[in-house]
Amino acid sequence: MPVRPDNVHQATLLRLLREGGRSRAELGDDVSLSRSKLNLELDRLIETGLVEQAGLAASRGGRRSGMVRLSPHLRFAGIDIGATSVDVAVTNGELEILGHVSQPCEVREGPATVLGLAMELLAKLREQGLFTQLHGAGIGVPGPVSFRDGVPFAPPIMPGWDRYPVREVVSQELGCPAMVDNDVNLMALGELHAGLAKQVDDFLLIKIGTGIGCGIVVDGKIYRGVSGSAGDIGHMRVDDQGPLCTCGNTGCLEAYFGGAALAREAVRIAPRSPYLGERLALGGGLSAEDVAAAATLGDPAAVQLIRDGGRQVGQVMAGLVSFFNPGLVIIAGGVARLGHVLLAEIRSVVYRRSLPLATGNLPIVLSELGDTAGIIGGARLISDHVFSAS
Amino acid sequence: MPVRPDNVHQATLLRLLREGGRSRAELGDDVSLSRSKLNLELDRLIETGLVEQAGLAASRGGRRSGMVRLSPHLRFAGIDIGATSVDVAVTNGELEILGHVSQPCEVREGPATVLGLAMELLAKLREQGLFTQLHGAGIGVPGPVSFRDGVPFAPPIMPGWDRYPVREVVSQELGCPAMVDNDVNLMALGELHAGLAKQVDDFLLIKIGTGIGCGIVVDGKIYRGVSGSAGDIGHMRVDDQGPLCTCGNTGCLEAYFGGAALAREAVRIAPRSPYLGERLALGGGLSAEDVAAAATLGDPAAVQLIRDGGRQVGQVMAGLVSFFNPGLVIIAGGVARLGHVLLAEIRSVVYRRSLPLATGNLPIVLSELGDTAGIIGGARLISDHVFSAS
Repeated sequence: MPVRPDNVHQATLLRLLREGGRSRAELGDDVSLSRSKLNLELDRLIETGLVEQAGLAASRGGRRSGMVRLSPHLRFAGIDIGATSVDVAVTNGELEILGHVSQPCEVREGPATVLGLAMELLAKLREQGLFTQLHGAGIGVPGPVSFRDGVPFAPPIMPGWDRYPVREVVSQELGCPAMVDNDVNLMALGELHAGLAKQVDDFLLIKIGTGIGCGIVVDGKIYRGVSGSAGDIGHMRVDDQGPLCTCGNTGCLEAYFGGAALAREAVRIAPRSPYLGERLALGGGLSAEDVAAAATLGDPAAVQLIRDGGRQVGQVMAGLVSFFNPGLVIIAGGVARLGHVLLAEIRSVVYRRSLPLATGNLPIVLSELGDTAGIIGGARLISDHVFSAS
Repeated sequence: MPVRPDNVHQATLLRLLREGGRSRAELGDDVSLSRSKLNLELDRLIETGLVEQAGLAASRGGRRSGMVRLSPHLRFAGIDIGATSVDVAVTNGELEILGHVSQPCEVREGPATVLGLAMELLAKLREQGLFTQLHGAGIGVPGPVSFRDGVPFAPPIMPGWDRYPVREVVSQELGCPAMVDNDVNLMALGELHAGLAKQVDDFLLIKIGTGIGCGIVVDGKIYRGVSGSAGDIGHMRVDDQGPLCTCGNTGCLEAYFGGAALAREAVRIAPRSPYLGERLALGGGLSAEDVAAAATLGDPAAVQLIRDGGRQVGQVMAGLVSFFNPGLVIIAGGVARLGHVLLAEIRSVVYRRSLPLATGNLPIVLSELGDTAGIIGGARLISDHVFSAS
């Protein structure tokens, strides 16, 4: 297994350098260490190979300070397992993506198949010369996870994965530390590291895809709750009189506006929508993507469907905004690609129904990271672990 | 102003001793300090008068270790300003209540009157010989607070208090540090210190009184949100078709089940309730207390009213439980005294509607602190500040 920092000071220095190389003098400004102690810890990190010297900085008025940066040989893997796809990326120590591959894959085919594919995709990136040894891997899965144990926990759309030792298997396979989390939590970490939440300590990321979930960040860290299920908002109640949900209750948010609900509604409105009607006639059913395409073409029935869904999402979000008083709400996931019609409707409901004190300075935005939020979040998760004192 | 600890080690030692006196050896088990460093910091705390020696502990096999405890002269004040009452208490350093007085008082009479009364009540406790000098005071008010600035912020039921410098005024008046927070947050701190949440890091306290609010504790600390309004759940939506709320929206939780809503409903059902009918005939209207009394006598209409309210509260709480995945939910406040009928209804809805993973080990309980949660929380808040490095 690769080396880890010896103490909390080294860990802090590594996390600062993850934001980019800088001079010893600048690092000294950000940590409360004497200059000699700082240099001692940096020299130790250079010995272990995690950090390297990088010439001299411009003068700040006195002697020029030595530049340091993370070793350019550091490599993290981010593995984002979705309901119907696997994304794999390799990053450097600063979590910049060096290579990213994606392949369709049904998560319900089980861990052997899906993790096998993830390993194949990683091998492809290795063959391209992107890495020889990984320093850690972060894995996201589309369901509840016992974070402490590194296993999925009774995940509804992942037959065969319940308590499967994902962390141990991946760690063994790659010969490096690994960690597993819910995919939505990883997306939130991705936004925290490289997205719109970079300067925000307390925020929510709402993922609207096949399922609907929420990543909660408190004080710059994922809040997971007591049994790891925090943020599982898909079955929050919109209306008792609403449609029956797969969970057995009625009127859950997902029953109104998950990927499956949207596909069902698309079929229902197809007779009134030239575009959807035509797609349906071609056979194979309809999907959320078809609704998005129809709306983009200005199809009124499709636009109305999105507005109705946005209102339901907005009603649930309005409550969460009053409760949590976040500094930012990011909307992400496949259905979020329905774009600005959806966003406008959500905003309208939240700004009308939440407390004015909670919405005064509250931006509600669409993610700009697209498919990379989860893989960057995976790299961030495992780098937080590798860059902590052992 | 009284002394504060010099450094983070001294602060940690003071917080440990707040839980009760103990031997130097036991303290050594709980902090990562060398024995000589530990004794150095303790000796410094003894010099400042914050800590004192207290004889020798029983032997743990070697030399007997010296006992230490907080100075018995330490005194904190907890001031709990409610909508219609003021509670004032003085505690020792371990936050045990030495004296507690309560007096009816309308918060809408404004800060001069209400804070004047609080100072009078404190003077009464001083005359009883409970203290000569206070080391800090924690104040709770029934509305939103800008915690950083120590002022109420646009509080709806507190005319004249908006941005009134409560912290500065009380601090000046008492000659000690003071802090101001929302009353519900202080109740949550009280539960954390002395109530059912003592061993729980992440929990929710739902206060149902004149208003409805929620204290959120994350990792043993109050979560206040970005603008300090976190937990303001009274205007979360139960039903769009519901009654008009004072906030201008319809179907807010408070419009169904705040103290005012309950009093209004009591009048509505009075013709069907012998007890409430008789009370109403005596003049002066009805209150939540009357509903509680009627329900205790087994009046079916009053019991039904409480069950209906419990269902609305339960629906909102079910969503919050799915979202936040707390380790405990405590119900407190005046209306909570409606007791086990209310609790049973809330539990039934939450256990039915929240995620099984979130409710698996979730206790939902009634507070056992009664009127003391807020004042203990006030003392806890200010002691956290006084027992932190200056």
